[in-house]
Amino acid sequence: MISLEKIARISIPSPSKIVFLVIDGLGGLPHPVSGKTELETANTPNLDRLAGEGSCGLIDPISPGITPGSAPGHLALFGYHPFEFPIGRGILEALGIDLDLEEGDVAARGNLCQVDERGVVIDRRAGRISTEKCAELCQLLSKIELNGAHLIVCPVKEHRFVVIFRGEDLSADLSDSDPQQTGVMPQTIAPLSPQSEKTAEIANEFISKARGLLLHHPANMVLLRGFAKRPRFPYFSEVYKLKPAAIATYPMYRGLARLVGMEILDAGSSIKDEFTALSEHYAEYDFFFLHIKETDVAGEDGDFERKVRIIEEVDAEIQGLISLDPAVTVVTADHSTPALLKGHSWHPVPFLLYSRWCRSDRVKEFSERTCAAGGLGRFSGVEVMPLVMGYSRKLTKFGA
Amino acid sequence: MISLEKIARISIPSPSKIVFLVIDGLGGLPHPVSGKTELETANTPNLDRLAGEGSCGLIDPISPGITPGSAPGHLALFGYHPFEFPIGRGILEALGIDLDLEEGDVAARGNLCQVDERGVVIDRRAGRISTEKCAELCQLLSKIELNGAHLIVCPVKEHRFVVIFRGEDLSADLSDSDPQQTGVMPQTIAPLSPQSEKTAEIANEFISKARGLLLHHPANMVLLRGFAKRPRFPYFSEVYKLKPAAIATYPMYRGLARLVGMEILDAGSSIKDEFTALSEHYAEYDFFFLHIKETDVAGEDGDFERKVRIIEEVDAEIQGLISLDPAVTVVTADHSTPALLKGHSWHPVPFLLYSRWCRSDRVKEFSERTCAAGGLGRFSGVEVMPLVMGYSRKLTKFGA
Repeated sequence: MISLEKIARISIPSPSKIVFLVIDGLGGLPHPVSGKTELETANTPNLDRLAGEGSCGLIDPISPGITPGSAPGHLALFGYHPFEFPIGRGILEALGIDLDLEEGDVAARGNLCQVDERGVVIDRRAGRISTEKCAELCQLLSKIELNGAHLIVCPVKEHRFVVIFRGEDLSADLSDSDPQQTGVMPQTIAPLSPQSEKTAEIANEFISKARGLLLHHPANMVLLRGFAKRPRFPYFSEVYKLKPAAIATYPMYRGLARLVGMEILDAGSSIKDEFTALSEHYAEYDFFFLHIKETDVAGEDGDFERKVRIIEEVDAEIQGLISLDPAVTVVTADHSTPALLKGHSWHPVPFLLYSRWCRSDRVKEFSERTCAAGGLGRFSGVEVMPLVMGYSRKLTKFGA
Repeated sequence: MISLEKIARISIPSPSKIVFLVIDGLGGLPHPVSGKTELETANTPNLDRLAGEGSCGLIDPISPGITPGSAPGHLALFGYHPFEFPIGRGILEALGIDLDLEEGDVAARGNLCQVDERGVVIDRRAGRISTEKCAELCQLLSKIELNGAHLIVCPVKEHRFVVIFRGEDLSADLSDSDPQQTGVMPQTIAPLSPQSEKTAEIANEFISKARGLLLHHPANMVLLRGFAKRPRFPYFSEVYKLKPAAIATYPMYRGLARLVGMEILDAGSSIKDEFTALSEHYAEYDFFFLHIKETDVAGEDGDFERKVRIIEEVDAEIQGLISLDPAVTVVTADHSTPALLKGHSWHPVPFLLYSRWCRSDRVKEFSERTCAAGGLGRFSGVEVMPLVMGYSRKLTKFGA
């Protein structure tokens, strides 16, 4: 695998455009009755035509046998090996609610919890309070003033929230306050290096003031864990010399796109809206990450038929996409989400690359089974971007 | 490739069972008359059915073009990259005769040799003395008492033996005494680090006392080489959270299984016995390494027909194996041993994975040629275990 540094050395800007369509959780498993996967069941004349004229293969987003989470799956597709570019829990939580993080920010995942009069945790989720209640309490907590950091507290869902400490020279090298069990006291946050002493004080100050503010609420305490700093990943503009834009209706994917320096476009709220956004902004960028979430949601729900329908809905937009005439169009996924498993899986993911410089293979239809015999073979997720860059003629020769 | 540390972080125990059948040296080359390999010639209705319903591929146990020895071939299949987990010569020799090594043991490969009256080596193998003679002399050598270590001396075959030094704080960082040529004196064993000074003294004491004891025998001296310590590999229980058992009729494979923490079952002496052992112990473990040696022996002997017959003998046991209903069944090999080459070869190895979570591919028959077009593609031996763990649903998601 070629490193991002080496790619950066041979990448060149050019007017050619790339559309990178990620159909989340696209890969599936055969339905026990029909013996066909979701993608094989869906009527996809447009994707099949692209498969017929382009090159297909199967990718392991992370590595064979490994079930990717959404964040590492996408990072791999963007060319950032998730083993080399980890993202901390607090940051993931912040990305999931569209928080626009600044460099130096320290984020942590928070739980509103319940402690008894001695301070012992009796319910780590405070009875899973409503999201509305959580929002109300987060607003209260936001008023806390800290010595040496600005505070942001945002509700996520039910008892979950995110806290951001923003300031100079903060460090995320901190232990958790969340003891991950009941019957014990929350832990004092400890600095795990001399550089994080100040941040530990700030975080403990937040907790102690939160305790005071929440005293008479049923959710009367907070637990923090997964302190993490916004990672500084090399940007698409640096690595690939691209001007990239992201179209995604779910916050997590916008957050991941921001981490690699993509601009976020208004994606609307439907699949049709997303493709419309692509058309409208097509002149302004040379790389478009277009993310379809609904396939994954249907897979997670175990709804085979809905997943089939959504794939067909995406297929109906392909004609419009191709009429924009991108140099390279990629259709793939960050992982499989077979409806049969109701969750992400380790199965490799169908991959389709359409460009005028393809050697066409024998694939005539876009599916897991046909891609397994595709001309691109089976390869790793982090090799996708170098391939895309090659086909869009944005890489010069390596060596003389 | 994912590291064992990372696998350990996402692996979870579960009741599902894995049968890992290694048909040693299975891969072959086409017979010049029939144009078919040993596996293609064999009548294997049961393996063909598994191939039809499961997923196939080809593996390079170490890497393309490299002919694996038995030890690195197996370690790779177990998920331990042989470049990262080397085994010293002395240890391999000890494993080959079923010596149950303890942590801290230092082993060396020994030769009974012949020296002249000045002590110059005139025959490094003492005329390849019989194994019986070697056993007799090893018994004699076993009586030697050493200062600071317990001694174990075991015959291997002809002039070959193994010596084990067992004691506190021993080190294997020692030079050889074997000069690897005649006409010179055996070398004094030198410590290669300050930590090994004591062990060097002990080893030299052994050699000097051996010289005295052997003085009036035709094999009148010993040569030692390949000092090595029993490596401490992470165990299957730690990495994969498995309770593994090994069924193997040859000592080397039991030894390798012990190194990764497998329990050794009584395998009997025939292929039928091995499958019976599997059935009898099926309730007690969740991972079974079942090793068939005879295919490799037939290949090494250049006996194409015998290799075919043994493959058919294994095939006849498959029905019984599948009736145990393991979550994942793997059929593969540690390397190819084409009868035409009378030895191990670099050719990739057919791989078959059978599980209810397979996407079936177009393979309808288990052979080198069909596996080359299998849905799993061509991959590396160390990726087998992550794949097996994925299909048995013993890995949680990587990242959120």
